[in-house]
Amino acid sequence: MKLQAALDTLTLDECLELLEETKGYIDIAEVGTPFIIEAGMVPVRAIKEKFDSIEVLADAKIMDAGEFEADKCFEAGADIVTVLGVSNDETIEGCVRSAKKYGKKIMVDMIAVKDLEQRTIEIDNMGVDYICVHTAFDVQASGKDPLEELKVVNKVIKNAKSAVAGGVKLSTIDDIVNEGAEIIVVGGAICNAKDRAATSKKMKSHLK
Amino acid sequence: MKLQAALDTLTLDECLELLEETKGYIDIAEVGTPFIIEAGMVPVRAIKEKFDSIEVLADAKIMDAGEFEADKCFEAGADIVTVLGVSNDETIEGCVRSAKKYGKKIMVDMIAVKDLEQRTIEIDNMGVDYICVHTAFDVQASGKDPLEELKVVNKVIKNAKSAVAGGVKLSTIDDIVNEGAEIIVVGGAICNAKDRAATSKKMKSHLK
Repeated sequence: MKLQAALDTLTLDECLELLEETKGYIDIAEVGTPFIIEAGMVPVRAIKEKFDSIEVLADAKIMDAGEFEADKCFEAGADIVTVLGVSNDETIEGCVRSAKKYGKKIMVDMIAVKDLEQRTIEIDNMGVDYICVHTAFDVQASGKDPLEELKVVNKVIKNAKSAVAGGVKLSTIDDIVNEGAEIIVVGGAICNAKDRAATSKKMKSHLK
Repeated sequence: MKLQAALDTLTLDECLELLEETKGYIDIAEVGTPFIIEAGMVPVRAIKEKFDSIEVLADAKIMDAGEFEADKCFEAGADIVTVLGVSNDETIEGCVRSAKKYGKKIMVDMIAVKDLEQRTIEIDNMGVDYICVHTAFDVQASGKDPLEELKVVNKVIKNAKSAVAGGVKLSTIDDIVNEGAEIIVVGGAICNAKDRAATSKKMKSHLK
């Protein structure tokens, strides 16, 4: 199991500081979508240059021009790039072609997918590396969490590994760990923690 | 009717040059998704600074954290920001809140929406400015074009205006103009033209 820290709202300097403080506990640094919208691939390059032992995920949430957009992220140094599960099959397939070309990985973000089981089965056959259930930030306030969706995905995947994102915190991490996922994504619970190193260490210690 | 040029694959200097060459013909400069993935809000700021008579659309294709991400685009100077029609209602509503705050506009990109008529009716009630039918780049090779989808949207919208994107060229623009749309988005047909000024002028002359 890997711990992924979603870096969405910090400046680049704050991100680099966080990754330095939490060294050894965070396996994957996610350059979050708002960060990409603001700064493009600049943080991907900067993190990759400074921390060669941490994988970098570019949360580009690709929706079209799959191969072209994934190429850009991998060229900048990303190890993993996200594409949306609601996109056309051709887009996901384009991302997979790009990943194979660069020897890197694709994560499909299943945010807002309507028929999760059916779409997971389809995507699991496309050669992607990770299928990530994701409770949207915009609906977390309604009390939704990603555990039930994780169970649906785990039940049907045969090729990809599962990942989970959306409001994961210390009080919910054990249930997720027990259900099983290759990657657990944590955002605010780490970024907004008073002691980010201690929180990351504790979270990492809960993983199997 | 407005002509929107989608700037997806050019460098920033090439974009500024194109907008200079085509002055008077292009109403909206779209900073395309791959351009945002590469450079963030840098091109939005640069175009806005240099061309104050051209509207700038940030094709962020927002999928979550609607208000937060739209805020970032409007703060950078965007006049219009895109959100995906496949996103959760809360995300589109967040983008609308952001637009109202800044006195700017939201376009919903209906790419890969399954039940176009039903989703258009829902979104038309959310206070968005434009609903854009969009044949994905990744499926244009199969011969699909956005005209039929435009008819579906035009039939049901009561509040928003329609827009159309996806492989529009000189040979298909008249049918779109006759069907009616507030914004017509053209990408490759302008960016890859030998004479971009002449092509933009001709396209603009076809609009009503």
